[in-house]
Amino acid sequence: MSDKTKVTVWNEFRHEKKDEAVKNIYPEGMHSVIADYLKKAGGFEVKTATLDEPDHGLSDKVLNNTDVLIWWAHAAHKEVKDEIVEKVHQRVLSGMGLIVLHSGHFSKVLKKVLGTNCSLKWREIGEKERLWNVAPGHEITEGIGDYFELPHTEMYGERFDIPEPDKLIFLSWFAGGEVFRSGCTWERGHGRVFYFRPGHETYPIYHDQNVLKVIGNAARWAQPRVIMDTSKAPHIPEPLEKI
Amino acid sequence: MSDKTKVTVWNEFRHEKKDEAVKNIYPEGMHSVIADYLKKAGGFEVKTATLDEPDHGLSDKVLNNTDVLIWWAHAAHKEVKDEIVEKVHQRVLSGMGLIVLHSGHFSKVLKKVLGTNCSLKWREIGEKERLWNVAPGHEITEGIGDYFELPHTEMYGERFDIPEPDKLIFLSWFAGGEVFRSGCTWERGHGRVFYFRPGHETYPIYHDQNVLKVIGNAARWAQPRVIMDTSKAPHIPEPLEKI
Amino acid sequence: MSDKTKVTVWNEFRHEKKDEAVKNIYPEGMHSVIADYLKKAGGFEVKTATLDEPDHGLSDKVLNNTDVLIWWAHAAHKEVKDEIVEKVHQRVLSGMGLIVLHSGHFSKVLKKVLGTNCSLKWREIGEKERLWNVAPGHEITEGIGDYFELPHTEMYGERFDIPEPDKLIFLSWFAGGEVFRSGCTWERGHGRVFYFRPGHETYPIYHDQNVLKVIGNAARWAQPRVIMDTSKAPHIPEPLEKI
Amino acid sequence: MSDKTKVTVWNEFRHEKKDEAVKNIYPEGMHSVIADYLKKAGGFEVKTATLDEPDHGLSDKVLNNTDVLIWWAHAAHKEVKDEIVEKVHQRVLSGMGLIVLHSGHFSKVLKKVLGTNCSLKWREIGEKERLWNVAPGHEITEGIGDYFELPHTEMYGERFDIPEPDKLIFLSWFAGGEVFRSGCTWERGHGRVFYFRPGHETYPIYHDQNVLKVIGNAARWAQPRVIMDTSKAPHIPEPLEKI
Repeated sequence: MSDKTKVTVWNEFRHEKKDEAVKNIYPEGMHSVIADYLKKAGGFEVKTATLDEPDHGLSDKVLNNTDVLIWWAHAAHKEVKDEIVEKVHQRVLSGMGLIVLHSGHFSKVLKKVLGTNCSLKWREIGEKERLWNVAPGHEITEGIGDYFELPHTEMYGERFDIPEPDKLIFLSWFAGGEVFRSGCTWERGHGRVFYFRPGHETYPIYHDQNVLKVIGNAARWAQPRVIMDTSKAPHIPEPLEKI
Repeated sequence: MSDKTKVTVWNEFRHEKKDEAVKNIYPEGMHSVIADYLKKAGGFEVKTATLDEPDHGLSDKVLNNTDVLIWWAHAAHKEVKDEIVEKVHQRVLSGMGLIVLHSGHFSKVLKKVLGTNCSLKWREIGEKERLWNVAPGHEITEGIGDYFELPHTEMYGERFDIPEPDKLIFLSWFAGGEVFRSGCTWERGHGRVFYFRPGHETYPIYHDQNVLKVIGNAARWAQPRVIMDTSKAPHIPEPLEKI
Repeated sequence: MSDKTKVTVWNEFRHEKKDEAVKNIYPEGMHSVIADYLKKAGGFEVKTATLDEPDHGLSDKVLNNTDVLIWWAHAAHKEVKDEIVEKVHQRVLSGMGLIVLHSGHFSKVLKKVLGTNCSLKWREIGEKERLWNVAPGHEITEGIGDYFELPHTEMYGERFDIPEPDKLIFLSWFAGGEVFRSGCTWERGHGRVFYFRPGHETYPIYHDQNVLKVIGNAARWAQPRVIMDTSKAPHIPEPLEKI
Repeated sequence: MSDKTKVTVWNEFRHEKKDEAVKNIYPEGMHSVIADYLKKAGGFEVKTATLDEPDHGLSDKVLNNTDVLIWWAHAAHKEVKDEIVEKVHQRVLSGMGLIVLHSGHFSKVLKKVLGTNCSLKWREIGEKERLWNVAPGHEITEGIGDYFELPHTEMYGERFDIPEPDKLIFLSWFAGGEVFRSGCTWERGHGRVFYFRPGHETYPIYHDQNVLKVIGNAARWAQPRVIMDTSKAPHIPEPLEKI
C-alpha cells in the first residue's frame, strides 16, 4: 500500500446544482466539503468523482487507484450503471474500503454489497438527533465523546434492513421518538464497509466537525490490508498430503 | 404459517440426464432423493422444481407458497434468469428460508443473498471428508454426533469468500490437507440461510443418512416466523412525540 | 427433553417484602406474576425460587430440573453465593436457557456468563420508554408489533458494557434523550441467553402484556436442545487417521 | 497512548525449569523467546513476568503500564491468584489487549474474559498441523500466506467451547483427523482479545517464524485505542431533554 490512503469521494451531485438552498450550503457539492476536510486532516490523497462524469468518474484506472471509496447518493440511484456497480462491488471484495453515507443506504452499491434491502423509516421535519457512541474503543470513534448532536436533521428509523453488523458504532435517538443504528461496520471479501447515517442535502451536516471527524476516522480504518481478487475458485489438483 | 413447512427442492437437473454414472446414482434426480427423504421425515409439504421448467419451476405462485427453498446447482448457474434470482432474493428477505447445497455456493442466488463471491478451492479425487459438529446445541445438528464421515467426496478448501457466519455449524477435515466451513448460517432480512457443503453428482452423498438428517433439520430450522416485505422505506410524516 | 419446558423464575424478593409501594404492585413478588403468566400461557412447568431460601432455592436437584432460568435481582447481588453462581454458570454452558431481567444486568450470574461488566447509565424519574422491535422475524418478538411503549419507567442508557450480541432484538428510546440495547441474545456453551431490560420494582412493568409476552417467547426460544457438560477436555490418545 | 506499544509477556515458567528437554529448547523460558522477537521486530517496549514472582509479576504498576498482555500457562492455572485474575480481567475491559497462547485456553484469565469453559480435545503424538489463513485481509495475518505448517505439534480438536468469535483468523488441520479454530478474536469491554493455538513446551513452536510473526502482528492489532474503566454504572439524574 502507498503511504497515503487514496480516497475517492463520490457524489451524485445533482441537488447542489438544481436547488438553491442546497447550493448555498454546498456551493461546490458535498463531495468537495468532505474532500477538503480529508485533505486538511492529512494522510490522504483525495479525489472526487460524480454521477454525470463519464463512467460516473469511476474508470478502471480510478477504481484501481482507490483505497477507500466514499459514497453519497439520493435521487438518482437508478442512473448508476450496473456495470460500474459491479466493478465497485468487486473492488470492495478485493479489499477496497467503502463508506456509505446517509441516503446512500438505498444505493445499488450498498444493497449489492450487503445483500439486503437496506430499507428504513424516514421523516423530514428537521428534528433533533443525538448519536450515542456505543464503541468508544473503536478507531472510528476516536476523539468523539459519549455522544454528539445534530440540531436539525432528517429522521431515519428502525427497522433498518441490514445484516447484523460486525460492530455497532453509533445509535441514534430522534426527538420524534425513533431510534436507528447510525454507524455500522461489516467486512465483505477483504474489504471493510462502514455505513454512517448523518448527512442530508438541505441541512449543513457535512459542516459539522463531529461528522467530519467520524468520516476521516472511518477512511483511516477502512484502508485495505491486502488487495486480492476473490472471484476465482482455484483448482488444486494435487493434495497437500499423500492419500 | 401452515401446520406443515412447505419446502421446494430446486435442482439444476442436468447431470442426471446427461451422465450415465450420475443417472445410476440419482435416476430421478438429486431433488427427488431429497424430496423423498423430507416426505418420509414428516412435517413437510414437499414440491420440486428444476431449471428447464418454465420460469425454472419457480412461478410467483410457487415461490409465494414456499416456506423453505433448497437449491442445488452446478454447471448452469448462468442460465438461471436474473428476474427469477431477484424474486428468490426478495422472498428470502421477506422471510423464506434458503438452504444452498454444495456447488450452489457459486449460484447467483447465494452470491446475491450474501453479497460476496463465495469462491473456494476445490479438488476432485474422491478423498475422505470428516465433518466436525461445532454446534451440538443447534437445531441443525440434532441427532448428529461429534462428527460424521463421507468416504469419497470432492474437496472444498478455504478461504471460502463468505461474510462471517452468524453461526458456524460444521467444519470439514479433508484427507488431502484442507479444511472448510461446511455448515454456516446467516440471517438476511427476515429469512434464514444455511449453506451446507456435502453433495456431488458423482458420489452418492444424498443417500447418506447424516447428510439427509442435516438437510431435514435445516428445513425445520429455516421455516419463516414472519413473511413481510422489506423493500419499501415507509414515510412517517408525523412524529410519535410532540416536538 | 420433556414435553413441557421446565422454567424456574428466580427473584431476589426483598423489595416486595420491605417496601409498601412495591408490595402493592407485586403482593406475592415479581416472580409470582411472571410464573402465573407462564402457567397460563401453557407449555411450561413453572417453579419459583428466591434469595432467602436455602441455597437461594437453587439446589442441584432444582437446577438439574430447570430448562430455563429467569433471573431478577437488584439490591442484593453480593449476597448470592459464589458456589451457586458457579453452578448456574455451568448449567448454562451445559445447555440451560437463561433470561436476565432489568437490574439483573449487574448480577454475578450475567457478568460471569458474559465476561463483561454489564455497566450502563441510569435515571429514575419515571420517564417514557419506547422499545423498537428490530428483529420481527425472531421467535422472541412473536406477536409484538413495530414497537411497544412503557409510559413510566427507569431509564437505562448506553454504553452498555456487553459483548456484541449475537442478535439485537429490541432498541429503546427514552424521553430523556438516551437509547439502549434492551433485548439481546447470546449463546454460551450450549445455552441460550437473553437479556431483557424492562422491569422495575416500583412500576407495574410485569403487568404489561407486551413485556410478559416477550418473556414467554424468550422462555420458549431458550429451551435447551442438548444438555452436555462442557467443562472437561477429553484426551483422544488414538488418531482417527493413520499417521 | 505512548509511541511504543507496551507489551508484557507472561509465562508460567515452570516446565522450562523442571524438564531438561524443555530447558534445551527454551533455556531462558518461552517468554524470553517471544520477548526477544518483539524487541527485534520494533515498535514495542517489552517486559516479562512469571508466576513465581511476587504478585506473579503483575503488580498494579506493571498492569497499569501494560498495553498488551501475552499469556502462556499450562500446569499451574490454579496457582494464579483470583485477585490478580480479577485485575487482569478489569484491565482488559478497560482497553488492554490480551493474547492467550496454546494451553492458556484453560487459564482462569481466558475463561473469565470469555465466560465459557474453553474446553477442547487433545492428543500429544507430535503430529503435523497446517494452519489455514481464513482472514488474509486482517492485521493479524500480515505477511502470512494461504497457510503455514508445524511439522510436529500437540493436537487440539473441536468442539472448542468458546463464544462465536468476532472474527475467525486461522483454522487448523491435523494429520490425525481433527480440525480446530486456532486463531480467534473477540472484543470485551474496550479490550481486544486474541487466542492463538500454537505453542507447546516440548516442541520448538516459538522458534517458528510464522508463529512469531502472528504474535507480533497480534500485539500491534491488540493495542488499546482508549483506556477507560467500565465497572461503574453512572447515575444521570437530569434528562438531556425536557420532559
